[in-house]
Amino acid sequence: MPDAQLIALDWGTSNLRASLLDAHGQALETRSAPGGVMAVKDGQFAQALLALCGDWLAQTTCPLVASGMIGSRQGWREAPYLDAPTPLAQAAQQFITVPVALADGGPARLLHIAPGLRCLDSAGEFDVMRGEETQIWGAGLAEHSCCVLPGTHSKWAWLGEGGAIRHFKTFMTGELYGLLTQHSILGRLMVLGTEPKALQTDALLAGVRLGLRGHAELPHTLFAARTAGLMGRLAPEALPDFLSGILLGAEIGGATAGAEPLQQVTLIGDEALCQRYALALEVAGLGVSRAADGATTRGQWLLAGAAGLLGAAA
Amino acid sequence: MPDAQLIALDWGTSNLRASLLDAHGQALETRSAPGGVMAVKDGQFAQALLALCGDWLAQTTCPLVASGMIGSRQGWREAPYLDAPTPLAQAAQQFITVPVALADGGPARLLHIAPGLRCLDSAGEFDVMRGEETQIWGAGLAEHSCCVLPGTHSKWAWLGEGGAIRHFKTFMTGELYGLLTQHSILGRLMVLGTEPKALQTDALLAGVRLGLRGHAELPHTLFAARTAGLMGRLAPEALPDFLSGILLGAEIGGATAGAEPLQQVTLIGDEALCQRYALALEVAGLGVSRAADGATTRGQWLLAGAAGLLGAAA
Repeated sequence: MPDAQLIALDWGTSNLRASLLDAHGQALETRSAPGGVMAVKDGQFAQALLALCGDWLAQTTCPLVASGMIGSRQGWREAPYLDAPTPLAQAAQQFITVPVALADGGPARLLHIAPGLRCLDSAGEFDVMRGEETQIWGAGLAEHSCCVLPGTHSKWAWLGEGGAIRHFKTFMTGELYGLLTQHSILGRLMVLGTEPKALQTDALLAGVRLGLRGHAELPHTLFAARTAGLMGRLAPEALPDFLSGILLGAEIGGATAGAEPLQQVTLIGDEALCQRYALALEVAGLGVSRAADGATTRGQWLLAGAAGLLGAAA
Repeated sequence: MPDAQLIALDWGTSNLRASLLDAHGQALETRSAPGGVMAVKDGQFAQALLALCGDWLAQTTCPLVASGMIGSRQGWREAPYLDAPTPLAQAAQQFITVPVALADGGPARLLHIAPGLRCLDSAGEFDVMRGEETQIWGAGLAEHSCCVLPGTHSKWAWLGEGGAIRHFKTFMTGELYGLLTQHSILGRLMVLGTEPKALQTDALLAGVRLGLRGHAELPHTLFAARTAGLMGRLAPEALPDFLSGILLGAEIGGATAGAEPLQQVTLIGDEALCQRYALALEVAGLGVSRAADGATTRGQWLLAGAAGLLGAAA
């Protein structure tokens, strides 16, 4: 593999995704496994890595970089949280490293783990991200723009000069949806269906409108996902998307309430989730654009370059 | 038991509490069992009732009244939701009945199940209660006052003329606390302790202040219960009460935000929970009073009287 320049690892809570990049930062090959931080037992991170791409390590001398929860306290080794708006070029100077012993007994290789970011919100509480900063840097967004990364813990980030991440906010939207459908009384009246299931758009939009209106009393507003079922206003199959809409509306209402006026956001991430968010953001009167695919890998490539890991060959 | 006039059943989701009342509505005896609606299998409600107080039925000819989730769709027989502000005297005309066959083969007795209440909130969504209306009627509150019944689904109720329940709001506060401590990432950094545990008052109050301030973006505000642990600002033992405080603050902030100005609320219910709520309500600048014990039984007594069930003897 003469062209290979970098092994880039997107190592999150649930999954490990590895890309072998060429001299232009383009993927020669991509692989993934359910070897996320929570799935790896007893600190067997090296084994998980070698199982997925031991052959790349044996056949190349590429440097390795990783971003995501692998740098958390539950990960391989804890990387610091840098204070926003630390820019990419400075973050690249603060990789932490762990040695990776190879199966053939050759000299250990270094894995470079990217730091996370933290900031203080207006209430004086910390917020944190790990992995999303790399994704945002890789997305090449305009200065002073706002982006949203939907997910278990969705992130809103406001960029400043030079695309630095000025501040950001986490919303536990995806996790709340999971808890409420799987473990709460709201789930009792629902038919959840199996993935991929058709989006019940009307129910989603009704939920979004309700969540936007009722985000200031969310523990009450959520109860509508029970009474709408009890009173026969919505079918059991429509209730999950109604609840999803309430939570999306509450997220958007909350994120935009105290913040500077916003016209446009860029969505970054999973296609199905971004579609859902795009519908909800439009109800809230926001323009939506989508980041190009491959933001994570591009961010890792930029970090590796700024850290001087790509050498003369790149 | 010559004095016995009424068997009053407080039959909720988790527990069945039975009181045998005398001609003044005072309890001659009270018993309880974990025979709530969710614990009774295959519709064996009669068996659960007879197991707890079959001897009362055999030895007296008292009428039986019940309030609570026993009248829900998951209960013994569904009682209607009456539209608030239906007053007690009218609600008492709309008991539904189920026959209870006695073990000795004697004539079946009738169990009278109280209806629930429903109302529309300002967003046009239904809210519902079952059992709390009886508790509120029994608490003998002042006209035009506001009361709070803490719990899995805590209820705020605003009273009108003659103590009628003008409208009310459910907040899923207790259930959210359970979900977030037991099933979410927030629980990972917590030490929950065993009941009864000492209240971490400082952490609770810090949470209340944060929840009051951040109730409009609750899915973000909740994340502070993670970062406060990550950043070492709070000990693992203090995090549960910090989260509890955030949720209480969000409930109070939400309940008082759009509503008419409020100076004073009356708390009705479980002692430990009411203590917690009293602390939180004081942070929010509200005066707090407590309802006398026995509100549920008193409400059932009043309903039975208004329904003409107590006869000439009472």
